[in-house]
Amino acid sequence: MPEVYLDHYAATPVLPEVAEAMRPFLSDEFGNPSSLHSRGDAAREAVDEARERVASLIGADPEEIIFTSGGTEANNTAVKGIAWMSRRKGNHVVVSSIEHFSVLHAARTLEKFDFELSEVGVDSTAMVDPDDVRGSIRDDTVLVSVMAANGEVGTVQRIAEIAAIAREKKVLFHTDAVAAAGYIPLDVNSLGVDAMSIASDMLYGPKGVGALWLRKGVRLMPLLDGGIQEGGRRGGTENVPGIVGMGKAAELASGDLASRAAKLTGMRDKLISGLMSAIPRLRLTGHPTERLPWNASFVVEFIEGESMLLFLDQKGISVSSGSACTSRALKGSHVLVACEVPAEIASGSLLFSLGIENTPQDIDYVVETLPPIVDRLRQMSPLYAKYLKEGGG
Amino acid sequence: MPEVYLDHYAATPVLPEVAEAMRPFLSDEFGNPSSLHSRGDAAREAVDEARERVASLIGADPEEIIFTSGGTEANNTAVKGIAWMSRRKGNHVVVSSIEHFSVLHAARTLEKFDFELSEVGVDSTAMVDPDDVRGSIRDDTVLVSVMAANGEVGTVQRIAEIAAIAREKKVLFHTDAVAAAGYIPLDVNSLGVDAMSIASDMLYGPKGVGALWLRKGVRLMPLLDGGIQEGGRRGGTENVPGIVGMGKAAELASGDLASRAAKLTGMRDKLISGLMSAIPRLRLTGHPTERLPWNASFVVEFIEGESMLLFLDQKGISVSSGSACTSRALKGSHVLVACEVPAEIASGSLLFSLGIENTPQDIDYVVETLPPIVDRLRQMSPLYAKYLKEGGG
Repeated sequence: MPEVYLDHYAATPVLPEVAEAMRPFLSDEFGNPSSLHSRGDAAREAVDEARERVASLIGADPEEIIFTSGGTEANNTAVKGIAWMSRRKGNHVVVSSIEHFSVLHAARTLEKFDFELSEVGVDSTAMVDPDDVRGSIRDDTVLVSVMAANGEVGTVQRIAEIAAIAREKKVLFHTDAVAAAGYIPLDVNSLGVDAMSIASDMLYGPKGVGALWLRKGVRLMPLLDGGIQEGGRRGGTENVPGIVGMGKAAELASGDLASRAAKLTGMRDKLISGLMSAIPRLRLTGHPTERLPWNASFVVEFIEGESMLLFLDQKGISVSSGSACTSRALKGSHVLVACEVPAEIASGSLLFSLGIENTPQDIDYVVETLPPIVDRLRQMSPLYAKYLKEGGG
Repeated sequence: MPEVYLDHYAATPVLPEVAEAMRPFLSDEFGNPSSLHSRGDAAREAVDEARERVASLIGADPEEIIFTSGGTEANNTAVKGIAWMSRRKGNHVVVSSIEHFSVLHAARTLEKFDFELSEVGVDSTAMVDPDDVRGSIRDDTVLVSVMAANGEVGTVQRIAEIAAIAREKKVLFHTDAVAAAGYIPLDVNSLGVDAMSIASDMLYGPKGVGALWLRKGVRLMPLLDGGIQEGGRRGGTENVPGIVGMGKAAELASGDLASRAAKLTGMRDKLISGLMSAIPRLRLTGHPTERLPWNASFVVEFIEGESMLLFLDQKGISVSSGSACTSRALKGSHVLVACEVPAEIASGSLLFSLGIENTPQDIDYVVETLPPIVDRLRQMSPLYAKYLKEGGG
């Protein structure tokens, strides 16, 4: 049986070059970059090099990069850290309703600290209307955070337009680019953003490391107080092997961005058209064209995502039914709710997140394998029986 | 030239067994523990096993362990998270004045959020008097945090007594055990604490991972909002290789605690007596007997710690002049200030932090090498010239 892994939004394999780059720092080169003696030199130089590589992926200056423990910490640091630092200026924050929980829940936590929160909705393709952001900004707004692209449904947002509005209104703008970085071109200066979060484990780098880019001059209250690491903006001994791995992963992604995107887009479109023509009452979620190269997300009517996922797993195909961060909570997706997908249909959600190691044969196998599973599950579905009885199909 | 690494408080080498345990999770077993399909199974099982091993090191239940990105995050989460969660009860926090900055600065950050802070001093051996803690607790106190042992000067605190006072006063008690765990026996139940921080990289595990133990029933406001990982107390995809490495390191430390401590204590005492008899006007800092097995810390009068450190580095000996977290800030140590070591003497601080791979020959080499360096530096020291002129020596 083939093994087809299509859950890269949950986890990507670490590229062999990345693991190789990390290896010395898990053995002989174990020094602390902050040490003054020579045993810290290799670690310090490697962290500096990684900082340059990560900065280069998004067109930033290396000293503007703050290494974190992942995308979640980067998002929490940006949202809470900027808001808290700006409290004297105002106490209102704007986010979109489809943000990852590390932005959305961080913003809701601010409400416990006397902030007010506006959540901007999306249309049925999960697109934020920049004019809605404009309409939400008030005199006391200190931060707007809208993601570069949504990982669950793939929609790529109009970030440059939203950033321009924020700038015009003199409000800081953060974008969560965890799902987007390495897959679409992102240049912090041409986008005009003030802060951007990225994560190693979406880039075929190790888990447990990420980065927050913060434009020079933008200040925040550190989330992790401690030593003077990361320019005093994030305490704690640097995760040297992780940072080195992320640096290598970023370098590979920078050099290969266009060809990775082209390859993924080709497979994505083959998967979308293959499944759409083989399965009736299948809906593509997210935007039909403005979407991440790796994302093919659907709702399958009348049946449950979980059941499809488990049947596919038996056939060697790994997919998810939404964000891995919430998959074990078995709650409906807040993203599909925001797109106004009815709850009974949203439960049939299925997310294929493609990776650079996938092949067109993997796609063929899925297009062969899923339709009979859907058929079989629908035969057992009371909703489907009702639909047929009412003259559907 | 021998290479003698005596800066384990800054960084420990990763044990080969630990690196070996991590290896699969940096290649084939890259799954996300939260995934529902079988590619997440190995990661989930490995994280569960690591949780048991870390819990076992401190006599805790596995579900009470929250994995973090290190000791700094564990300390920040405990101090801020517990205080914020308890705001309705009160807004006063007590810490010792010699806490690591990840506790001390976290507590000072709370002052920006309308908390009041009492810092309890220490005696000249860096020992906290439990009665001083008792005297600092008020009706509105919600948290006391006193470290299990101080890494810079080695003093082991009377934690069980302080915990009993906190319990009697119905105040939650956190202890930063980053410097102590794996070196002295720590049982959360016999100590009677409510929260304890530990770090992998003090245990010959990887950097970038740590744990906060939180007694069942103790609630906190998460520092990292996001998914439902770690029982909803810490969002973010689990750092699977890091967690697995920490688990293995904790298992090895648990099994070997007494023999490691005996070996380190023997070398420590040999180093202390060797240097004390070879170097006049050398002071041991911290407590003479109640000290960590790995810690030999001194102040050398009339000269600078930095200079000794660099000369030792040229002889292949790696040491530090205090905490690695602040070594590049080149500020005086707040710990030595709290012990009332005069500033001009405190600048001559030198910290030898021993590790399990050190040998008695390493100690001999240091005892041979340091005294002539001190002599040479003192010959160049105006302070020393003044001292001799005034009839000293």
